[in-house]
Amino acid sequence: MKIKRSERLIDMTHYLSEHPRELVSLTFFANRYASAKSSISEDLVIVKDTFENRGIGSLQTVPGAAGGVRFIPGISKGQAEESIQVLSEQVSKSDRLLPGGYLFMTDILGDIHLMNHVGKLFAGAFANEQIDLVMTVATKGIGIAHAAARYLGVPVVVARRDSKVTEGSTVSINYVSGSSKRIQTMVLSKRSVKQGARVLIVDDFMKAGGTAAGMKNLLEEFSATVAGVGIFIESEQESEERLVEDYISLLKLRSVDEKGKTIQLETGNYFNRVSSFLKQ
Amino acid sequence: MKIKRSERLIDMTHYLSEHPRELVSLTFFANRYASAKSSISEDLVIVKDTFENRGIGSLQTVPGAAGGVRFIPGISKGQAEESIQVLSEQVSKSDRLLPGGYLFMTDILGDIHLMNHVGKLFAGAFANEQIDLVMTVATKGIGIAHAAARYLGVPVVVARRDSKVTEGSTVSINYVSGSSKRIQTMVLSKRSVKQGARVLIVDDFMKAGGTAAGMKNLLEEFSATVAGVGIFIESEQESEERLVEDYISLLKLRSVDEKGKTIQLETGNYFNRVSSFLKQ
Repeated sequence: MKIKRSERLIDMTHYLSEHPRELVSLTFFANRYASAKSSISEDLVIVKDTFENRGIGSLQTVPGAAGGVRFIPGISKGQAEESIQVLSEQVSKSDRLLPGGYLFMTDILGDIHLMNHVGKLFAGAFANEQIDLVMTVATKGIGIAHAAARYLGVPVVVARRDSKVTEGSTVSINYVSGSSKRIQTMVLSKRSVKQGARVLIVDDFMKAGGTAAGMKNLLEEFSATVAGVGIFIESEQESEERLVEDYISLLKLRSVDEKGKTIQLETGNYFNRVSSFLKQ
Repeated sequence: MKIKRSERLIDMTHYLSEHPRELVSLTFFANRYASAKSSISEDLVIVKDTFENRGIGSLQTVPGAAGGVRFIPGISKGQAEESIQVLSEQVSKSDRLLPGGYLFMTDILGDIHLMNHVGKLFAGAFANEQIDLVMTVATKGIGIAHAAARYLGVPVVVARRDSKVTEGSTVSINYVSGSSKRIQTMVLSKRSVKQGARVLIVDDFMKAGGTAAGMKNLLEEFSATVAGVGIFIESEQESEERLVEDYISLLKLRSVDEKGKTIQLETGNYFNRVSSFLKQ
């Protein structure tokens, strides 16, 4: 049975959204809808235009027999500004302040909608890069890593503080936490990163950058390349240098006033570091 | 500028996929596309039919001034069988066998595509239930929890083994691990679960069920209700009773043969416990 264009467009959109960065052949769609490749090509032009107009992403066409289309999720500058605004409003709520000036972030890191914003921002920032893996360290960054990985269509690997029997052989490093100056351990399963893999490191918070630097060192043991570092919130560092220089951050924590119950936030370096946005 | 139907259908599909179980008013779409509500209604009929035909989910219409549509991701029986087959093939690969008969699962739990299958299976199983939260315990179940929560459109909460300063006040319980009979601790931030919340508990593995029972006990402290328990892989239990009886599992581990390097898997109780599938 031949499938109508409207049905094809709806199913195609859903399929491509669920398979970001995956090369899908025209034959696949032609068989799926029992339609001619020429019709599929026309459909894809409509999908491409809409994705670009709406700031959903771009559709890359790969010509030739082994070709097809690939959906690259992206973000427009306006959407990125909006997303960062939404995140900022949530993070700056004064009831997040915990004794000692810590921020309660658990609800944000478990909020699927907010994590979608974070994931899209990171995926948009690295839309033109080859990324093979997203890496984070247990536990708090895992939601961010999964959100980014979903839009990038790549796996997540999670470094741990301790080695577990279910990880198989592991590689472990010691690193110095930048802010507390304590020596800490980070462990990654040997099987989880292939040599030469291009890895996007993400984390929820960065102070001096010790943890991010630790992840970089760990990846060196795997002969993997750091393709980028994405931080949800960085904190203002006055005196000290950061251990990681090349990163993008969505938000920057300027100050917390425990007595006055205020949290001062500003936009991170995202817009200074990210140059390619979707038009909108 | 008026937007063409094809563009509306594509953007609507994308929007609804990104906002599962959220009530979206017709006015929202009418404004978004500068189109009449009657056109939007017609669009939604097409989207609904396609979602149902293609096993993507259903579109609930809520009538009245405060009404709108709600996309409920679902799964057809055929798709569920296919997904479980894909997962089974991955889990049963003999190179997963670790010394002691443990299974290396880290790559599977970090694989976005496989986690999408797991998430859709759990969301499909609870498509007709009110779910407010997905809960798991750190660390391995977090990817599963995020995947399920994404299709259910609800937040994730993660219980921890230890209390951290960034969790604020916490509630902690001791429980007996069913298989090792050791006393363990589980901690959950006080703010993370509201009284009366209906919670879906998920985990990657269940042996005697001690951890799942622990999560149930912890939720009792919050006066929350367990709406369901979803387990990726349960292991065969011969002599002992399980500490949790009411759960769904995707796969069941029958046996591992370390010497012969074989892993015997079968389908879990999913199809016995889940009754409502999308037609297809």
